[in-house]
Amino acid sequence: MSGGSARSLAKGSEPPGPVPEGVIRVYSMRFCPFAERTRLVLEAKRIRHEVININLKNKPEWFFKKNPFGLVPVLENSQGQLVYESAITCEYLDEAYPGRKLLPDDPYEKARQKMIFELFSKVPSLLTSFIRRQNKKDCSDLKEEFCKEFSKLEEVLNTKKTSFFGGSSPSMVDYLMWPWFERLEVLELNDYVDHTPKLKLWMAAMKKDPTVSALLIDAKTFNGFLDLYLQNSPEACDYGL
Amino acid sequence: MSGGSARSLAKGSEPPGPVPEGVIRVYSMRFCPFAERTRLVLEAKRIRHEVININLKNKPEWFFKKNPFGLVPVLENSQGQLVYESAITCEYLDEAYPGRKLLPDDPYEKARQKMIFELFSKVPSLLTSFIRRQNKKDCSDLKEEFCKEFSKLEEVLNTKKTSFFGGSSPSMVDYLMWPWFERLEVLELNDYVDHTPKLKLWMAAMKKDPTVSALLIDAKTFNGFLDLYLQNSPEACDYGL
Repeated sequence: MSGGSARSLAKGSEPPGPVPEGVIRVYSMRFCPFAERTRLVLEAKRIRHEVININLKNKPEWFFKKNPFGLVPVLENSQGQLVYESAITCEYLDEAYPGRKLLPDDPYEKARQKMIFELFSKVPSLLTSFIRRQNKKDCSDLKEEFCKEFSKLEEVLNTKKTSFFGGSSPSMVDYLMWPWFERLEVLELNDYVDHTPKLKLWMAAMKKDPTVSALLIDAKTFNGFLDLYLQNSPEACDYGL
Repeated sequence: MSGGSARSLAKGSEPPGPVPEGVIRVYSMRFCPFAERTRLVLEAKRIRHEVININLKNKPEWFFKKNPFGLVPVLENSQGQLVYESAITCEYLDEAYPGRKLLPDDPYEKARQKMIFELFSKVPSLLTSFIRRQNKKDCSDLKEEFCKEFSKLEEVLNTKKTSFFGGSSPSMVDYLMWPWFERLEVLELNDYVDHTPKLKLWMAAMKKDPTVSALLIDAKTFNGFLDLYLQNSPEACDYGL
């Protein structure tokens, strides 16, 4: 992996050249949870890749040719093929590359992982609501909503009786959900999982996973980024570099 | 296929017995576009199945054991395995059953279909907004939004230069999107595709597809259903039987 800690490319930058043979490129942003999904899968499968960070508060014009939505993550390979939307990039990597399989081969087991993932679907927008809430002291409504969503996931772990959502080791659905739980901790919202003890144990187990720990974000840096991001600062994405 | 035109099961009904060997069951509702996706895939792949209609305005208590969200479609096989969420059911059927393959095997081509599907993602809620709009004479704002979404799909067809989104014949992404376009016609909104001629041709070509034409809804019956549905009538789902 190279480029993960490089400064982001912004408006006015030259588009990067073609992707070298034998490498896949990911357009990312150091603090983006959606891009982190793709980077976790690249790491878990040990896929040779390069990272190009994009300044999401001052996007390069050429980036919309990589993804019409203008969002990270985007994958680009040496044939110039482009894949975007985080869950699609992750499944693509799992299918196109050898190494540890993150989604089960069995169609029913695969469908089960995707149904669990649906139970998680409201969490990203809830976290965004929390982050954008001006008065952080009065978030009891959001906490209640979080806890409601988390109890659905708790029930899955209770029924499955495994440490991870896919079984005895982390698999695709675990990595797809992780970046938001990592941010819970960074934002000092650990008590949000107090009523879901299995989910709390899952978080602790995930933190010990070598793939997860290779990409852990530093709380102080993340909060520094967040301050600037909420002010729409074009310096946000490069905070701490 | 059996049961597609049977009356729906409602609150107080007995849960159906186990699924017979060699058959897959789909819990559906005759007019639900999401369930129609699954039924199109069952039809396209010629999978032996039975249909159990659910009264969505007066749901059986037992149905929440089939799907905690209480929504159709749900698949159930003779081993008692349950799969819900329409896109997940369709991919499951394509992987678990032999016959015509609806998603490409190539990981990049499969990812492309899923990216096209993302371009469609706002259409279902737009159609719901139209249906719920009291004053149907003043929908110019919705028409504008529809046309904006449709132009994204038009661009795909322009670039691909094929009649269907997956290539020269209908594939998964075509079937996943079709039910909403079918309803455009039934709701007499044909002029919404006047500015997207390729999409208009796609609609005409889809209507001729044997799978699609086997499941076409009757406009008069659909509108009768819709009237009752908007009044929250428990008779809505059985309209016309």
